[in-house]
Amino acid sequence: MRIVVLAGGIGGARFLLGVRAYAREVGAAVTAVVNVGDDLYVHGLKVCPDLDSVMYTLGGGADPERGWGRAGETWAVRSELAAYGAEPTWFGLGDRDIATHLVRTTMLTGGYPLSAVTEALATRWQPGVRLMPATDDRLETHVVVSDPDGDVQRAIHFQEWWVRYRAEIPTHRFVFVGAEAARPAPGVLDALASADVVLVAPSNPVVSVAPVLAVPGLREAVTGGPAPVVGVSPIIGGAAVRGMADRCLAVVGVECDAAGVGGLYGSRSSGGLLDGWLVAPEDAGAVVPGVTVGSAPLLMTDETATAAMVRAALELV
Amino acid sequence: MRIVVLAGGIGGARFLLGVRAYAREVGAAVTAVVNVGDDLYVHGLKVCPDLDSVMYTLGGGADPERGWGRAGETWAVRSELAAYGAEPTWFGLGDRDIATHLVRTTMLTGGYPLSAVTEALATRWQPGVRLMPATDDRLETHVVVSDPDGDVQRAIHFQEWWVRYRAEIPTHRFVFVGAEAARPAPGVLDALASADVVLVAPSNPVVSVAPVLAVPGLREAVTGGPAPVVGVSPIIGGAAVRGMADRCLAVVGVECDAAGVGGLYGSRSSGGLLDGWLVAPEDAGAVVPGVTVGSAPLLMTDETATAAMVRAALELV
Repeated sequence: MRIVVLAGGIGGARFLLGVRAYAREVGAAVTAVVNVGDDLYVHGLKVCPDLDSVMYTLGGGADPERGWGRAGETWAVRSELAAYGAEPTWFGLGDRDIATHLVRTTMLTGGYPLSAVTEALATRWQPGVRLMPATDDRLETHVVVSDPDGDVQRAIHFQEWWVRYRAEIPTHRFVFVGAEAARPAPGVLDALASADVVLVAPSNPVVSVAPVLAVPGLREAVTGGPAPVVGVSPIIGGAAVRGMADRCLAVVGVECDAAGVGGLYGSRSSGGLLDGWLVAPEDAGAVVPGVTVGSAPLLMTDETATAAMVRAALELV
Repeated sequence: MRIVVLAGGIGGARFLLGVRAYAREVGAAVTAVVNVGDDLYVHGLKVCPDLDSVMYTLGGGADPERGWGRAGETWAVRSELAAYGAEPTWFGLGDRDIATHLVRTTMLTGGYPLSAVTEALATRWQPGVRLMPATDDRLETHVVVSDPDGDVQRAIHFQEWWVRYRAEIPTHRFVFVGAEAARPAPGVLDALASADVVLVAPSNPVVSVAPVLAVPGLREAVTGGPAPVVGVSPIIGGAAVRGMADRCLAVVGVECDAAGVGGLYGSRSSGGLLDGWLVAPEDAGAVVPGVTVGSAPLLMTDETATAAMVRAALELV
């Protein structure tokens, strides 16, 4: 059995722990196609927050409390950068994490595509899942906001909006810069074409899953592919379990509940994405036209609970 | 009074502490023209060992025991790079130090010349001395060695020879790659033209001072300039106080003693560099034709002792 998962960062990483546990049980192979829209260059280093969250989490190196970055992290470089007055100060890089970015940046500068770099980094972490960026091309999520110092609009990088402004400034829309010219990373289309099922992780639908699907040809490979597609709701009882999906959904005018997000994805039969949609028990009444809705506990408290979620999702199709 | 010092790394840095102390006493201005031949890119970062040794030492941030790098240094990035198997493993970057290289590399990538970057970094460290790279252009000391795995010759970067091989492989000569096309950094020729005295620090003459003088026009600005030139011997009683000057001198066929190094520099009156040459008391009999040789204690144990050395050097001319 071949499972392909479309995933963002922390939610995607935790979900993949469950997918991996399930896959080990049944002898399945897992490929994760990961969002790169959050990626940025900071202090000259290429940082891929979602790929790293997934890699560190699956490799046993993630900080379980903070939810991002490395366990046992130290911050010497950050405080020295601050002593130099080096901008941006709002994006903190941990010392251990920086090693990852140095290796990645050196390889990218040397001409390796991000997919090859990701594979090389994974030889250390042995995530047990094939990790792929959605694209090797530069695709960055920018956010059109009202300038805090005036009434003009300007676009800022997603990380600036998210980390610096905590998504708390007047926001108009998201733009996936570079998406038009991006191509799926090598292997992504093949993985989708030979998948037995495609899972959409309970990641932020607007800024984690949407940029993956914004790569031309990738969405079509999912919606027109042979495998059924099942999504897992990131919203439980009308609230995001973690992160700021509520703010992102508000920007795109979608109700922050399980039915709203299911409707945003839409049914495959009507040009959308989903065959099945797994929601939490409290949202069991959610209706998404054309989509089989099922319910199961969705709190990813540990791998066993998450593997049960995955099983429930697969049983929908 | 305007003092210009030609300097390498650790010896140069300690000497400059004494020059600065002396200059504060008499109200002089100090410019240090620093070797860049040791510079290298490692893990994508531009590292300038000599400029950093001088900057950290004068700024009070150097590790006094180790002699290089930052006080209170930590090594999280290094051990993570090793976990990735990232080469080179023989050149260790400390966490605090890395912040300097990140700022420098980002500015260089952004188009600033090394001299401007050095000035920017110095705004934090306030070294009390104007720090200048000998050149903004890429000038790297390479070493022609016999390949350890065969009998062919090949050139390796100075740092690989020094740090990785501890200068303990068959060595044929030094090459200052890029020297022909290098130009003195902005301000260097002006500083030399308006100097009242030029001091040659007790740095390694072969791999610290020679690459500075290898920049076309720079040597001529010293030898043909208005200021007397006084050197301080890095060799005391036939031995290098620190470092591996003995090995470097052997490669160029120069006797490892105060007279040998003085003769290598030569007298200004015969096309060489020096008007005066300060040696240790035990070397007081050293003769360098055409050069005024004086003696004074040369162990740079503290700023006061080093300032006394500087005073003795200046009294020679």
